Amino acid sequence: MGFFVWGCITDFFTYETTKSVVVKSWCVGIINRLVQLLIISYFVGWVFIHEKAYQVTDTGIESSLMTKVKGFGYHQDQVMDVADYVLPPQGAGVFCIMTKLIITENQVRGRCAEKFNCSTDEDCHKEFGSVRYNGIITGVCLKPSNDSMGQCEIEGWCPAEDDSVESTPMLDVNNFTIFIKNSIRFPLFNVTRGNFPNTMTSAQIKKCIYHPDTNPFCPIFRVGDVLRYTGQNVSALARKGGEIGINIQWKCNLDLNIEYCVPRYSFTRLDTPFAKNDVSSGYNFRFAKYFKTENGTDFRTLHKAFAIRFDVMVTGSAGKFDTIPTLINLVAAFTSVGLGTVLCDIILLNFLKGADQYKAKKFEEVSEAQIEASVAQSPGSQLSLKPGIKSSCDSGALSLGTADQVI
Amino acid sequence: MGFFVWGCITDFFTYETTKSVVVKSWCVGIINRLVQLLIISYFVGWVFIHEKAYQVTDTGIESSLMTKVKGFGYHQDQVMDVADYVLPPQGAGVFCIMTKLIITENQVRGRCAEKFNCSTDEDCHKEFGSVRYNGIITGVCLKPSNDSMGQCEIEGWCPAEDDSVESTPMLDVNNFTIFIKNSIRFPLFNVTRGNFPNTMTSAQIKKCIYHPDTNPFCPIFRVGDVLRYTGQNVSALARKGGEIGINIQWKCNLDLNIEYCVPRYSFTRLDTPFAKNDVSSGYNFRFAKYFKTENGTDFRTLHKAFAIRFDVMVTGSAGKFDTIPTLINLVAAFTSVGLGTVLCDIILLNFLKGADQYKAKKFEEVSEAQIEASVAQSPGSQLSLKPGIKSSCDSGALSLGTADQVI
Amino acid sequence: MGFFVWGCITDFFTYETTKSVVVKSWCVGIINRLVQLLIISYFVGWVFIHEKAYQVTDTGIESSLMTKVKGFGYHQDQVMDVADYVLPPQGAGVFCIMTKLIITENQVRGRCAEKFNCSTDEDCHKEFGSVRYNGIITGVCLKPSNDSMGQCEIEGWCPAEDDSVESTPMLDVNNFTIFIKNSIRFPLFNVTRGNFPNTMTSAQIKKCIYHPDTNPFCPIFRVGDVLRYTGQNVSALARKGGEIGINIQWKCNLDLNIEYCVPRYSFTRLDTPFAKNDVSSGYNFRFAKYFKTENGTDFRTLHKAFAIRFDVMVTGSAGKFDTIPTLINLVAAFTSVGLGTVLCDIILLNFLKGADQYKAKKFEEVSEAQIEASVAQSPGSQLSLKPGIKSSCDSGALSLGTADQVI
Repeated sequence: MGFFVWGCITDFFTYETTKSVVVKSWCVGIINRLVQLLIISYFVGWVFIHEKAYQVTDTGIESSLMTKVKGFGYHQDQVMDVADYVLPPQGAGVFCIMTKLIITENQVRGRCAEKFNCSTDEDCHKEFGSVRYNGIITGVCLKPSNDSMGQCEIEGWCPAEDDSVESTPMLDVNNFTIFIKNSIRFPLFNVTRGNFPNTMTSAQIKKCIYHPDTNPFCPIFRVGDVLRYTGQNVSALARKGGEIGINIQWKCNLDLNIEYCVPRYSFTRLDTPFAKNDVSSGYNFRFAKYFKTENGTDFRTLHKAFAIRFDVMVTGSAGKFDTIPTLINLVAAFTSVGLGTVLCDIILLNFLKGADQYKAKKFEEVSEAQIEASVAQSPGSQLSLKPGIKSSCDSGALSLGTADQVI
Repeated sequence: MGFFVWGCITDFFTYETTKSVVVKSWCVGIINRLVQLLIISYFVGWVFIHEKAYQVTDTGIESSLMTKVKGFGYHQDQVMDVADYVLPPQGAGVFCIMTKLIITENQVRGRCAEKFNCSTDEDCHKEFGSVRYNGIITGVCLKPSNDSMGQCEIEGWCPAEDDSVESTPMLDVNNFTIFIKNSIRFPLFNVTRGNFPNTMTSAQIKKCIYHPDTNPFCPIFRVGDVLRYTGQNVSALARKGGEIGINIQWKCNLDLNIEYCVPRYSFTRLDTPFAKNDVSSGYNFRFAKYFKTENGTDFRTLHKAFAIRFDVMVTGSAGKFDTIPTLINLVAAFTSVGLGTVLCDIILLNFLKGADQYKAKKFEEVSEAQIEASVAQSPGSQLSLKPGIKSSCDSGALSLGTADQVI
Repeated sequence: MGFFVWGCITDFFTYETTKSVVVKSWCVGIINRLVQLLIISYFVGWVFIHEKAYQVTDTGIESSLMTKVKGFGYHQDQVMDVADYVLPPQGAGVFCIMTKLIITENQVRGRCAEKFNCSTDEDCHKEFGSVRYNGIITGVCLKPSNDSMGQCEIEGWCPAEDDSVESTPMLDVNNFTIFIKNSIRFPLFNVTRGNFPNTMTSAQIKKCIYHPDTNPFCPIFRVGDVLRYTGQNVSALARKGGEIGINIQWKCNLDLNIEYCVPRYSFTRLDTPFAKNDVSSGYNFRFAKYFKTENGTDFRTLHKAFAIRFDVMVTGSAGKFDTIPTLINLVAAFTSVGLGTVLCDIILLNFLKGADQYKAKKFEEVSEAQIEASVAQSPGSQLSLKPGIKSSCDSGALSLGTADQVI
């Protein structure tokens, strides 16, 4: 029993290594090393250095944004300030600068004529339920006396808005500035960064204007510049409205100094995929300011606002060395290097002079017939499940001898 | 010296391949191939074809949303239009359609009675600091003369809101339409897409209504349909408010034509996890419109709004062929195929007839005793650190001879 | 022909296993097992158990948020309620509680003096285009009669705002409560969760206050507590404004019971990266309430609001067992275990007593010279591209014989 356990232990602590055939052939040797070099340089150059496969990446960037617009403009000879033209006011990441307003003043609830022409009530009945008008179609055709043509009556806020009037947009928007304060955090690495360096003083920030080359970390953007970077025509944008994306990209390699973890700004017009469909060109919305007369009647001023909407989008990822991806990729690299053998084996065993000789060297054949013959000669060895060193050596010698005879 | 360098170079360009034992046994051969087939078909079928492990995926989708609601409704016999019932007005991705309003008009700052009953001031003292009322409890119990029961006094906007009044919600919300314009971008691949095809004309878009089967790319949604897709009761939702999620899912395989990269819409009620806790059912909020009297006193109209909030959420990922994941998975596949040998070795060396013979063929034993014996016979070879071809061959022959003798 | 096909089939179903050298050496055996143990324990302990490499993770969490603030405060002796101090009112994930207001009442469009001092018009001309004032500089220096110093005239809303007045902030904000309703979904696993358990009753929720230890699942947060958790001075924050992040983190292991998938709250001050740059400390914005006089003139009340902005951010990931990562990591583990052989081989073949003997056992050399010699002896075998079993055996025997002779 003690002997059996001891046998197990010695068995367990034996070391098994593959038997190799060393081929001293310049041809295969050079091919082998070339293939290995190729594989290694691919892994080192592309996988590890370029794609940074040794890093774990955190893409779950947390971001907090604050924006502040400054500037004054004239709209229909009236001065507009931030409280007048920015919506929503609280400095969120998505905000609109209204550039053209169609204002319908003193609307009260009631019934009035809409622009849709009619000659009989039936003409108006066809439009029941339509949402194209400024109110609910009552089905009555309002006709001035002695006139064959009239206009359909609507129920809603009167007078109805007439958005066909053309007015000049507030082109001063060009000189407005947007201050963007963005702080981000990579939760995986617990790294927090702001979009302008700590070394910038208050005075520096107040004076600077962002420029991709000369001032890439200034957090103040001139609207005219931003529109120019996106290649848009400012007056067209101000007249019809549009959506501009300000993308703040954080691509940080945290294996380097944290100071290199800086934002990169890029600017795009967001509604370009819809450039061809003219239904959706531009950007506008309606809102109302509500008032009360002395005697308590509600009235409102309806605004149809054409606006440039800015979407400040924060994206990013941070990478840092980590053992798991490194290990997986290293193992992949090592195994791939080993795969070079497959190619060389094919060459060695098929296309090289003396391929059959190499084959004979590499492969040692053993067929069932041989085994059966040797089993017949020594039937006892079949019974011993855990053969000791001796018996194993015996059968080895035996089969080797048999093999020699067969060959 | 030159000879030594040359030796190193020849050593370097030798090719080393493992020596294999080829077992001509139908049994193990078939098992081996079956296991390999299984592993290969798993990798090809599941890992590569189904899970697309050869692709790199970009999950950092960038999205820009614009929404526009249209429709008219009646709320307490008053016509409501978009400017009246949508909040915020600027067409963001999250917006509310107010369906029921509890309006408290002409509130001014002051002191008045709240609904909470009391008989003495002490009753009201208990409620100090409570946020359940419409103002700050002053601690005074206001009692009409000759009455034993009164109401606690509050300081705040008076008259206090009474939100127990029941009013009919604006069920016309059913016929409202929501237009959604969504443009997305996969930054990794620099691919930009819009949620409706370029081939759609303005007229087509204006007329169409989204339907999952017949019109899956129409960007206009009927509110009633959306609520129906989520399985919600419209009148209950309009009365208590609720949150509806409109999910736009982009799942793009960029190895195919870009035209197949289209959105899929799905609709859910977002507050379902809270269905059982009745405290949080529904959705409402308060806001006020501020007015001034002639003599400059502020007064306001408080609105408690029950609303259906729509959260348009954009999610998605794009996949595209990339060498790194392909390589890693290929290497994993190849290595796994090799792992089939482990199973076959176990069968071959333990359960097959003539297992010991196979063992003897596969394993060539060398024990410390043998090595020591051979070292004793040729002590010189120990000293040569980089033995030339000759000496290496010699010791090989020697050890082989020794081994034969031992066996 | 039939024989040839049969030969192919038998060839195909042969089983090839590497020939191994079993070294019965305690030294290498123990090192080998130790290295394997190290590698296995690294993979089991770190990769699998700690890093859960057997799981696929979904980081594309979908979230819906609803917030509701409650509480009353005094600002300049006036009671403020939710409708007065929360913006935007609709209970979004990002909202502001205004703590200090600088109110400029009864502004009308016109021209008036700004605070900037001047002695001549030229002083004002220098400031053309500046955005630091409350309107557009007209270039006129308004001087009271017989006075050498005056103030520059602006065109805009008059009277101009004077934001240098200091007023006491609404410190009652400490006692306000924030109710957060958050429902999330992991789209990959289609798992939906809410931020408080279903078992909580309406009464429990109404009474509770969040505490990280005693009440970690209560969705009601006292503002004072939140500020305290971030380590901020409440009165400084209320006076200058600031941004507070409430992070709801969902880290779910879906292999466990779904009930363990619960949120964890953390609180941070978001503008800390800018602590050193005093330009961007604090948080404020301007908005206006618009009024009309009897005769239809617009006037407004401008508010400069210092606010505490709360950003409720939802992050999270869920992991669940999946075959692909498991397989890749298992293969990596197995292959890595195999890599232990590399280390042991180096020891065995270089540093162990009898290294050359081991080398001779492990490596079987074959040089081009040998092969050429054997090819010369049997030139026919070179021609047969697909040698049958017989011929292959022949050449094998031949080369073996030749090798013996050479040795």
